Amino acid sequence: MTALQAPPSASEVLSRCRELVRPALEEAVAGLHPWLAEMAAYCFGWCEVGGAPAAAPGGKGVRQALAVLGAEAAGADGRVGVPAAVAVELVHAFSLLHDDIMDGDGTRRRRPAVWQAYGTGPAVLAGDALFALAVQTLAGVARDPGALGLLSAALADLVRGQADDLLFASRPRTGPERVTPAEYRAMAEGKTGALLGCAVALGAALGGAPEATVTALEQAGRRLGIAFQLVDDVLGIWGDPAVTGKPAGGDLREGKKTFPVLVALASPAAGRLPELLGRPERAEEAAALIEAAGGRAAALAEARTHTAAARALLAGTPLAAPAAADLLALLDFLVGREL
Amino acid sequence: MTALQAPPSASEVLSRCRELVRPALEEAVAGLHPWLAEMAAYCFGWCEVGGAPAAAPGGKGVRQALAVLGAEAAGADGRVGVPAAVAVELVHAFSLLHDDIMDGDGTRRRRPAVWQAYGTGPAVLAGDALFALAVQTLAGVARDPGALGLLSAALADLVRGQADDLLFASRPRTGPERVTPAEYRAMAEGKTGALLGCAVALGAALGGAPEATVTALEQAGRRLGIAFQLVDDVLGIWGDPAVTGKPAGGDLREGKKTFPVLVALASPAAGRLPELLGRPERAEEAAALIEAAGGRAAALAEARTHTAAARALLAGTPLAAPAAADLLALLDFLVGREL
Repeated sequence: MTALQAPPSASEVLSRCRELVRPALEEAVAGLHPWLAEMAAYCFGWCEVGGAPAAAPGGKGVRQALAVLGAEAAGADGRVGVPAAVAVELVHAFSLLHDDIMDGDGTRRRRPAVWQAYGTGPAVLAGDALFALAVQTLAGVARDPGALGLLSAALADLVRGQADDLLFASRPRTGPERVTPAEYRAMAEGKTGALLGCAVALGAALGGAPEATVTALEQAGRRLGIAFQLVDDVLGIWGDPAVTGKPAGGDLREGKKTFPVLVALASPAAGRLPELLGRPERAEEAAALIEAAGGRAAALAEARTHTAAARALLAGTPLAAPAAADLLALLDFLVGREL
Repeated sequence: MTALQAPPSASEVLSRCRELVRPALEEAVAGLHPWLAEMAAYCFGWCEVGGAPAAAPGGKGVRQALAVLGAEAAGADGRVGVPAAVAVELVHAFSLLHDDIMDGDGTRRRRPAVWQAYGTGPAVLAGDALFALAVQTLAGVARDPGALGLLSAALADLVRGQADDLLFASRPRTGPERVTPAEYRAMAEGKTGALLGCAVALGAALGGAPEATVTALEQAGRRLGIAFQLVDDVLGIWGDPAVTGKPAGGDLREGKKTFPVLVALASPAAGRLPELLGRPERAEEAAALIEAAGGRAAALAEARTHTAAARALLAGTPLAAPAAADLLALLDFLVGREL
């Protein structure tokens, strides 16, 4: 009889998976053209411009963890999911690199974005290299083309979501051409959900899971992604800057059309909200109006719906117990335990 | 007994393959996000900015033809090679879109490049969409992951070749850090050869060719690509502007480090060549010096070597006869019958 142990926390799960994946990710990146490998390493926080080693903050590694846990949930060793983990982390880095160019974001994780540090052209090429490497990594291990179908479908959804996101910025805030909350949900599913769903599904597929399990995990990951984006939207308006690391009300200052904003704009209680958005000095007033018009409550309710759906999908699928617990811990961590 | 017929000319082969592939290419592009589909259609010459139909000059369609002929060479119907043809044309369009951004080329086929017409960010995204669609197209039909291995390896080589090409521009013209002809050859194999090799190999793989045939065709396509690039370099200096559609000596005015230039720079007969490159008013003088230093002859000899190797690979591989003749016609057309 073993002693009772507390289940591992989400940060323990994330850190275990990062350690498992890191050597393979480093090896894949090292196979790139040296110039592109440096940009990739900079993007992952492993080096400074010029190549000197660094330990800058990388991402949390949610996607790689989902891939490892997907393989474990299928009853396989987590190492079986590592190529899937490498592929999805490469795709994630590719999308950050290119999105920062498109969005004109000069800073990423408190350092200059790759296009700022190395130039736009080189950053485009480094993104392309990561994209190609992701496909190559998976093509090298997948025994059937289904895995590449999952990855390429997620890539297509990711690009479609980014296209919608770019176009939303130029749509009006009011009138028949305004962005609807349903359109926003579809965008978030493409831009955030598709790759999370792909990560856990790919891991499960490499782990030998039956197709129904792969599909259920893919759906659960997508629901998690939508919920995560909605919670991120709420934090982007009402979050504590000390916790989020972003300025208070930053999304309102920039006039971003996030879910709470779109719900409020569609409500008769919107009042002068359209005029306040994008005006930094009126951000507090805008936040109060959005809350009064039900934007915050609707976003949290919608996030709760998707989180519950993800939990139900996990509960209704036969999964190896420790990995199922780790997946739930990760879900709680990403969307908040209270949802 | 059938009447004797002249074998089809290369332009008949190209046009037959374009007609065979066009519906599937249009269908694939139509499945993209409408905004990205318009940029893709503009890039293919099918529409104007805004979406109005157009019949602007597209490419010759060499890559799609190679894919169709690869399938036919394996004894299959050319239609079997169509998904490969669509995939390689999408990859080619992706690389033109992104390369024009990186190289700052504002014009492509006598129209504004996509990034000029739609903006840099949208052009980056449209390229990503074409890339993802290429992988998706192939993942949808390939019965084994080998085909995706071929495509992703070509993608990786393409990116590596572009990286070298970008870096060559900032290397010195003389001294130990100068670009060697061998480095240039490796760049051309990546940037031009890899996708030509992939096209014919993928077509053959979908047509059910044995692995040895796929490999031989891949190598032949790569050799053809290198030879094509070398001939293009010669035409870029000594070509007739009425035939090439490019200004006489254009490559010299821009100071491009092409193969004939690199050979001449490495020769004791280079003389003042380093100072003349990139000076439009000295282009004629530079061309004469490069010729005198053996640059032109060396490029043509090198192109002849690769063309002969491609022909030998085709001759040494069991291929269905009509397709083999079409492949040879295409080879003659691309590198010049006299080589």
